[in-house]
Amino acid sequence: MSYDKLPLEPLFAKIDELKPQFISRLEKAIAIPSVSGDESLRPKVFEMSAFLVQELTNLGFDDIQLKDLGIQPPPVNDPKLQLPPIVLGKYGNDPAKKTVLVYGHYDVQPALKEDGWATEPFTMYHDTAKDILYGRGSTDDKGPVIGWLNVIQAHRELGWEFPVNLVVCFEGMEESGSLGLDELVAKEAKQYFKDVEQVTISDNYWLGTTKPVLTYGLRGCNYYQVIVEGPGADLHSGIFGGIIAEPMTDLIKVLSTLVDSSGQILIPGIKDMVAPLTDKEDKLYDAIDFSVEELNAAAGSKTSLHDNKKDILKHRWRYPSLSLHGIEGAFSGSGAKTVIPAKVIGKFSIRTVPNIESKKLDELVFKFAEEQFAKLGSPNKFKIELIHDGNYWVSDPFNASFQAASKATQDVWNIVPDFTREGGSIPITLTFEKELGVDVLLLPMGRGDDGAHSINEKLDVSNYINGCKTLGGYLHYYAKA
Amino acid sequence: MSYDKLPLEPLFAKIDELKPQFISRLEKAIAIPSVSGDESLRPKVFEMSAFLVQELTNLGFDDIQLKDLGIQPPPVNDPKLQLPPIVLGKYGNDPAKKTVLVYGHYDVQPALKEDGWATEPFTMYHDTAKDILYGRGSTDDKGPVIGWLNVIQAHRELGWEFPVNLVVCFEGMEESGSLGLDELVAKEAKQYFKDVEQVTISDNYWLGTTKPVLTYGLRGCNYYQVIVEGPGADLHSGIFGGIIAEPMTDLIKVLSTLVDSSGQILIPGIKDMVAPLTDKEDKLYDAIDFSVEELNAAAGSKTSLHDNKKDILKHRWRYPSLSLHGIEGAFSGSGAKTVIPAKVIGKFSIRTVPNIESKKLDELVFKFAEEQFAKLGSPNKFKIELIHDGNYWVSDPFNASFQAASKATQDVWNIVPDFTREGGSIPITLTFEKELGVDVLLLPMGRGDDGAHSINEKLDVSNYINGCKTLGGYLHYYAKA
Repeated sequence: MSYDKLPLEPLFAKIDELKPQFISRLEKAIAIPSVSGDESLRPKVFEMSAFLVQELTNLGFDDIQLKDLGIQPPPVNDPKLQLPPIVLGKYGNDPAKKTVLVYGHYDVQPALKEDGWATEPFTMYHDTAKDILYGRGSTDDKGPVIGWLNVIQAHRELGWEFPVNLVVCFEGMEESGSLGLDELVAKEAKQYFKDVEQVTISDNYWLGTTKPVLTYGLRGCNYYQVIVEGPGADLHSGIFGGIIAEPMTDLIKVLSTLVDSSGQILIPGIKDMVAPLTDKEDKLYDAIDFSVEELNAAAGSKTSLHDNKKDILKHRWRYPSLSLHGIEGAFSGSGAKTVIPAKVIGKFSIRTVPNIESKKLDELVFKFAEEQFAKLGSPNKFKIELIHDGNYWVSDPFNASFQAASKATQDVWNIVPDFTREGGSIPITLTFEKELGVDVLLLPMGRGDDGAHSINEKLDVSNYINGCKTLGGYLHYYAKA
Repeated sequence: MSYDKLPLEPLFAKIDELKPQFISRLEKAIAIPSVSGDESLRPKVFEMSAFLVQELTNLGFDDIQLKDLGIQPPPVNDPKLQLPPIVLGKYGNDPAKKTVLVYGHYDVQPALKEDGWATEPFTMYHDTAKDILYGRGSTDDKGPVIGWLNVIQAHRELGWEFPVNLVVCFEGMEESGSLGLDELVAKEAKQYFKDVEQVTISDNYWLGTTKPVLTYGLRGCNYYQVIVEGPGADLHSGIFGGIIAEPMTDLIKVLSTLVDSSGQILIPGIKDMVAPLTDKEDKLYDAIDFSVEELNAAAGSKTSLHDNKKDILKHRWRYPSLSLHGIEGAFSGSGAKTVIPAKVIGKFSIRTVPNIESKKLDELVFKFAEEQFAKLGSPNKFKIELIHDGNYWVSDPFNASFQAASKATQDVWNIVPDFTREGGSIPITLTFEKELGVDVLLLPMGRGDDGAHSINEKLDVSNYINGCKTLGGYLHYYAKA
C-alpha cells in the first residue's frame, strides 16, 4: 500500500522526548484505584474524574463538564450510591477543521495483590529489562485515555496547530455496565456532540502480540433464558424421585438440542441468515497474523474446535456461536445435595453476525426450543425469554478514518496493520454510531496478551509510546482525508 | 388380623391423664433452638443435650453418658467448633428381659419467623381448636424423643414394671449429616450396645394423614458427579465462542442421555437388577391409603408421572429413580453472564432398590457416561465419580418387632397399620443393622403433612399422645414375643 506520507517526524520525536513524562502521567493515573465495581472504592472513581479534569484544564481544554448521572440503580448496598460522572471536554473549536470524538473509560477492574499479582496492582511497576509497565488499568483503559492527552501535550510543546477539533468523552462505569452512558450520548447527540463527525475508541487490543490491528467489526449477542417450572417448592429426591416430572430433566433435554460439541448451532434457519463468505473476504484472513498455538495459549488448553488460523478467525468473527452459560435455581454448590429443584432457568446466548436479524433470530430460537420441549410430553411449565440483545457492528475498513489510521500505523510501525474484527461486543460502538450517525473507528493501543481483566495487567512501553504516535498521526491523516 | 390382646388399658389411661405434663415437656424441648446447621446456635444444641440428661436422671436412668465427638471437620467458620455429644442412657438391666435400643435426634432444622411461620418457631403454639402443637422439632424429632421418656414416666407413676431394658441413643447432628454417629455406633457395638437385641427408630412419618404406618423399607442412594474440563480458566463467550470446545455443551449432552422426561432411566442394565414384582407384593399396594391427589398436594403441582396410587407407590418405594440435581462451576446467578465455564461438574443421583448391587451400578453408570462422552468426539477432559453411596434397606414386616408394633397400633388406633416403605434414606438404619447385627423397626409418630423440614412444623396432639401409647404398647408386645 502506497500513500503520501505526512511529515510527522517532529511529532514522533517530541513524543519520544516526552516519554518519561508520559510514563509518569500514566503512573499517577494507575495509582488511583478507580474500581467501579467496588462500592467502597467509589470515592476513588470520583478522584480519578477530578484527576482528568485537572489534566484537561492544564492542557487548555474548553467547556470541561462533569456530567452527573445520578444515583446508581439497584442492586447496590448503599441506596444513595452516586454514579461517577462522565467527563467531557473540547480541544479546539475551528469550523474549518473536522471534529473527532474520542471515547475512553477511567474506571478499572478490581485487583488485589492476593489474586496473584507479582506487584502491587495500583503501584505502577516499570520492568525496565522488558520495558513493560505493569498495573491495573495500564492497558484497560488508562493507557489509551492518557495517550490522547499525551498527543495534545506533544503538539503544544512543538507549537503545532492541532489537526482537528477534539471532543473527549471519558466514562467511569465501563467495567460495570456503562450505566447512564447510552442516555447521555443520546441526550448530547444534538448538543455537546453536535459537531462530531467521527468517533474513535481505543479500548480493545491487538489480536496477537506483534502486529498492530485496526478493528472494523464486532459480533452482537442475544442472551436467552429457558424457564422450566414444576413443583411448588424444591422437593426431596428420595421422596419424589421417580413419581414427579423433574424440571431439570426437561431443561437439560432442551438445552442439549441447541448446539453440538463441535460448536454447530442446531437451531434451523440461523445459518441461512449468515452473510455468505466471498472469495474476497476469505482472502482477507490469509494476511492476518494468528495461529492455533496463540489460541491454545490464550485458552490455556488444546481444545480448539478448528485446526487452522482461518477457520478460527472466521468462527470468532463472522460466524455465530451458541454458548450454554449455566442454570439458575439448580444445586450449584460443591458436594452432594439430594434436591429436585422446583424451578430451573437455563442461560444461553448466541453471538450474532451479519446478516442475522435479531428479531427473526428470537423467533427461530423460541420456536425451536418450544418444539423441543413439546416433544418431551412433560406436564411442567415452559417459557423462553430474551434477557438482552445487542446488535453486531461492521464498518468499512476502506473508509477515511480506517485508511488514516492505517497510514499512521505504517508510519509508526513500518507495517500494514491487520484489519480485524472481534468476537465480543463493545456496545458503546453501536450507541455512538446510531445516536451520532457517524463512523466509528476502533484503534487499539495494547497487545492481545495484556491481561486486561486478569492479574498482572500490563502495557508494553513500545505500545504506549508508539500508540501515542499512532493516535496523533491518525488525527493528522484523518484531517487531510 | 387377630391376636392376643394385652391388658394395656391402665397404661393408656395414665398416658391420657399425663397429657398436660407431656405437652409441657415437649414445649420445654421446643423452646431450645438446637439448630445443628447454624454454628451460632451450637451452644443451644449443647443445652438441649443437658436438658435430656436432666430428664433421663429424673426418670431414673443409669449409666448416662455424653459421648464427645470432638471438633467438627471443615467446612466450618469456627475451626474449633465442637460437635454436640451423643446422649446415651440405660433404663433397666434385667438379664431376663429383652434389650431394645431407641434412637432419636435432639437437633432440629433451622427456622425463622420471617421464613413464613405463622407463629414463633421456637415457642410451641397449641392450637386448641384443631388440637395441634406447632413448633420447630415438634414432629422431627423432639416429639418422638420425648415420647419415649413419657412412656417411662407413665410406667413409673403406674408402678408398673418396665417390659424391656431400654437403651437410648440420642444424637445432635442428624440434620447436619450425623457427623460422628457411624463411628460411635461401631465403637459401642460390643460395649455400651452389647446387649441390644432390637433397634427402634421413630424418625419418619405416616404416608398420609389418617392411617398409621410401619415402615419396612428404604431406598438407597448413589450420588455421582460428572466433571468436564477444558480451558485453563473461565473464558469470555464473545472471544472464545465458536472456536473452543465448551465443557458445558459436553456436560449437558451427557446429562441429557441419563434419564427421560417420563422418569425412565436410560442407562442399560439397571432395570435388570431390580427385583421382579410378584403378585403377592403387587397386592400389598392395594390396601395402602394414598392417592394421586395426596401426591399433588405434597408436591404443590399436578406434575405426577403416574395416574394411579399403585404406580406412584411402586415408583417411590421399589423402583430406582435418577434425579439431576445441578451443576457446579457454571453460571448460577440471576441475570446474564457471558461466561464459558472452564470446568463444570454435573450432579445426579440414583435411588436404589433391591436387588441393585451398588458396585455393579457404579460400573454401569461409569461405562454408559464414558461412552456418551466418547461419542461427542470432544477434546475436553471427562471424569465421572461416585460422591457417596448408601444401600437400600428392606426388613421383614412379619418379624417379631413389626408384629408387636402392629398389635400396639391396632390397640391404640383400632386399625391395622399400612406396611410401607420410603423413597428416601435413613442411613442410621443400615448402620445399626450392620454394626449391631439386629433387626430395625421404623415406627413413626407424626403424619405425612407435618412439614418436618418446612415452615409451620407441627404434631397433632392425637399423634403425640396416641404415639406415646403405641411406643409403650409396642414394648409390651415385643417383650412377650
